[in-house]
Amino acid sequence: MRKILVTGASGFIGSAAARALLAAGVEVHGTSASGRAGPPGVIMHRCDLLDDTAVADLLAELRPSHLLHVAWDVTHGTYWTSPANFLWLAAGARLLERFLALGGQRAVGVGSCAEYAWTEAETYTEVSSPLAPATPYGRCKLALSEGFAAAGMMGLSTAWARLFFPYGPGDGEQRFIPSMLARLRAGEAFDTTSGIQRRDFIHIDDVGAALAALTRSSVTGAVNIGTGEGVALREVALELAASLGAEPGLLRFGALPIRPGDPLSLIADASRLRHEVGFTSAISWREGLRRLSQPRG
Amino acid sequence: MRKILVTGASGFIGSAAARALLAAGVEVHGTSASGRAGPPGVIMHRCDLLDDTAVADLLAELRPSHLLHVAWDVTHGTYWTSPANFLWLAAGARLLERFLALGGQRAVGVGSCAEYAWTEAETYTEVSSPLAPATPYGRCKLALSEGFAAAGMMGLSTAWARLFFPYGPGDGEQRFIPSMLARLRAGEAFDTTSGIQRRDFIHIDDVGAALAALTRSSVTGAVNIGTGEGVALREVALELAASLGAEPGLLRFGALPIRPGDPLSLIADASRLRHEVGFTSAISWREGLRRLSQPRG
Repeated sequence: MRKILVTGASGFIGSAAARALLAAGVEVHGTSASGRAGPPGVIMHRCDLLDDTAVADLLAELRPSHLLHVAWDVTHGTYWTSPANFLWLAAGARLLERFLALGGQRAVGVGSCAEYAWTEAETYTEVSSPLAPATPYGRCKLALSEGFAAAGMMGLSTAWARLFFPYGPGDGEQRFIPSMLARLRAGEAFDTTSGIQRRDFIHIDDVGAALAALTRSSVTGAVNIGTGEGVALREVALELAASLGAEPGLLRFGALPIRPGDPLSLIADASRLRHEVGFTSAISWREGLRRLSQPRG
Repeated sequence: MRKILVTGASGFIGSAAARALLAAGVEVHGTSASGRAGPPGVIMHRCDLLDDTAVADLLAELRPSHLLHVAWDVTHGTYWTSPANFLWLAAGARLLERFLALGGQRAVGVGSCAEYAWTEAETYTEVSSPLAPATPYGRCKLALSEGFAAAGMMGLSTAWARLFFPYGPGDGEQRFIPSMLARLRAGEAFDTTSGIQRRDFIHIDDVGAALAALTRSSVTGAVNIGTGEGVALREVALELAASLGAEPGLLRFGALPIRPGDPLSLIADASRLRHEVGFTSAISWREGLRRLSQPRG
């Protein structure tokens, strides 16, 4: 790999991937719309991915051999149904067109387990699980995955990462684990659902390493990014409270209803990641939570 | 329907749909990038769909209640694999974002039977036939169909037309029927395949009427636009020669190989169009060919 461009390299997922690519000795360039800093060592470029001219200029200047496209609107509370999903779909499609025109070799896009039809399935498999997203976010991610597949028919090597549930330092403060952590640290009650839903949580360092491994591989098509193991939200909550030495009574299970349509189980079949990409996650959910619960600084 | 915008309204498909909508008494606006005229009665706007600002300005000015999005790159010989497919995917996604933001009510997009996984199936059904396009064109059309599905979750009524094989006056000169017609008229030989492939040919007037009916209906999701009947290319060729009074020996069947991956049968299951939209094609393929073979002018 000569040179990679990571879009959204200052974000939660993008920065983890950029760090892992740097650690592998790759020349890593990153974009950020806001001009936020990226990980040390990453050559950052201020570029709004929704601005076609800016994107075209940056690609023409850099001519990266590889592309890891992470950037997307993930504003908490709105991103599932935001019209911005259309703009990010459009941005991704135009990015592919430019990357292809400038002789790019390999592009990996970041999608989501939200692309699957959420059913009563225990685990989700890239090839055989039906794709029928329940949300505009999932639909637009799936749409862009078709764009990557199209580029894969036009001389580019392409893969599409379907992320399960990343967590760890840098995660959005309003998401499940960070918001619970903040409440418990403050000695405040945390209202939550019954917590019987099982999710495939994968530590952000593993996500970064998995994306780096996928990008450096020649594996094509969709690849789940998960551990292959599920844990109930209730178990996560209780473990986090125990790690913090917090009173488990602060966790008010059942205070909130489970959102309609929220599936009981969202767990990756991680066989492709393990056997084709050759990556296995290293950080168990218990270890990941232990790290999160340690005093910061 | 208060006011409809038909993109690509000067083209083969778009103009047929615009004519049918006009005939139904709708106020029809159309776009053309080149400034080509549309059908009489259609209020044409010169607008490059790939120019986001121009599109946003036009939508803000017109504020159509309905949208029929037909425009796409269909340059003969290149469109199956052209990188322009990415630009049209992006344009469609942005168009949806604008239409939604400006209070649009219903949007219908035009896709293709190339979105289906071409198998040994006899007919293709919207709900149950697998979607796995063999071409970048099919992939990008399928991608945009996901965008329309996303918009359908955000308050818009949306449908997606999967066109089978339109033919008739105005068709691209290099396509199967027009090129054969030109050769036979000139008394020249026409090299073709064995012609055993069966296709669902639908006359352009029926395509226009079907798209108008679909747009005026409240049917959502994918709808095949076909007659539901297949005819072998060989039969089409022989019928056309007979209509013209041309020597059948001019048709050199088997002179060309069947393109690898070209399926033997591509026929629509037209049940949704017939029973839900309430449209049945009126022009048989024999009648359509007879009209085409009549002296022009």
